[in-house]
Amino acid sequence: MNNYEGRIEELGIKIPEPPEPVGSYIPARKAGDLIFCSGQGPKKGDKFVHLGKVGSDLTVEEGYEAARVSALNCLAEIKTEIGSLNKIDKIVKVRGFVSSAAGFGGQPSVVNGASELLIEIFGDSGKHARAALGTSELPGNIPIEVEMIASIG
Amino acid sequence: MNNYEGRIEELGIKIPEPPEPVGSYIPARKAGDLIFCSGQGPKKGDKFVHLGKVGSDLTVEEGYEAARVSALNCLAEIKTEIGSLNKIDKIVKVRGFVSSAAGFGGQPSVVNGASELLIEIFGDSGKHARAALGTSELPGNIPIEVEMIASIG
Amino acid sequence: MNNYEGRIEELGIKIPEPPEPVGSYIPARKAGDLIFCSGQGPKKGDKFVHLGKVGSDLTVEEGYEAARVSALNCLAEIKTEIGSLNKIDKIVKVRGFVSSAAGFGGQPSVVNGASELLIEIFGDSGKHARAALGTSELPGNIPIEVEMIASIG
Repeated sequence: MNNYEGRIEELGIKIPEPPEPVGSYIPARKAGDLIFCSGQGPKKGDKFVHLGKVGSDLTVEEGYEAARVSALNCLAEIKTEIGSLNKIDKIVKVRGFVSSAAGFGGQPSVVNGASELLIEIFGDSGKHARAALGTSELPGNIPIEVEMIASIG
Repeated sequence: MNNYEGRIEELGIKIPEPPEPVGSYIPARKAGDLIFCSGQGPKKGDKFVHLGKVGSDLTVEEGYEAARVSALNCLAEIKTEIGSLNKIDKIVKVRGFVSSAAGFGGQPSVVNGASELLIEIFGDSGKHARAALGTSELPGNIPIEVEMIASIG
Repeated sequence: MNNYEGRIEELGIKIPEPPEPVGSYIPARKAGDLIFCSGQGPKKGDKFVHLGKVGSDLTVEEGYEAARVSALNCLAEIKTEIGSLNKIDKIVKVRGFVSSAAGFGGQPSVVNGASELLIEIFGDSGKHARAALGTSELPGNIPIEVEMIASIG
């Protein structure tokens, strides 16, 4: 088994408690060897690190940071479901929806905030298929929502 | 095996015939123990219960109702693929795209219409990972499109 | 094993090299018998066959063509991951996000460009669950982004 929890500590990263679902759902669901997590925004404790649209309210760099925090929240959801992130075999898929100002087309640079965190933590096993998408509105005016599928052993 | 079909009848819910695909695809596809369904809108018979954007043309309550009808159509698709909803082990993932007026951020309250239906029918097995998203346009001006992944035994 | 590679040649279709990821991710990821590919746009060589929004900058027919090219790029990604498309058992799911002009609701006709290519190549095994969605912005102003899940034997 890999020591991803140790690697996370080494990196000085703290997996938060998963944000309480704002609706009638659960943080993550296991089906066979796949773990599907719920869509996450950039919540840290009780607050969002950023709100608004990337390309107007937020810079790409702020969007990148928001993507990183959102991905951490996805990992928190997965940890809740499987107990330890050491059980992860691979990160399979990441999908990032970026709330985008009119004419903004830099979604991949924003979603890199999620992808690069996963590669820092899981190395080659953190490399994933991905989709970066823009949209007009997200819940509560969050700038990004990240979804993730991981697999276990 | 669970008697979800009986529960559905008890609840006075009727699983419709799945709406005919408006394109070159099929209602649902089984892969291993997972069933992936196609995106569904709030069609009842030949008509949509609501059309337009939530937050301007529709209230959150109307959006909620539209989400519930869309989720029923997803169950209809899954039933077509596996024969009986009694075979369902778990609802794994629900994704709801809400056609949203500018500035509308209440997508989770809308998508609850899908989530709460699933919990009414399947109980704890109906609890799912979820993503609620906003978007600017959906096919034929529908207010919501719901996708679902379920697993079988 | 099916001879899909031969069928592709018969049809005069050429599976391209997969476009280089514009971000920190990989083209496709296998998990069990499922292959998840990354979101693809209508890139042909170094250029996009179309850019802009369907319903204003592009006609439905141009969007359809863009969807077909995007789906070919998804197949290229899958081929990179599994070596040969002959290994495909089924196309499981296709999701197409169409960059849509205000009021445009013809996303299913656009995404048919992806679906019909898959049925030409894989026959009944190419039939898939699908979601066609509209959105306001996509990376680099592409008109469509296609995601795909396939299964192997």
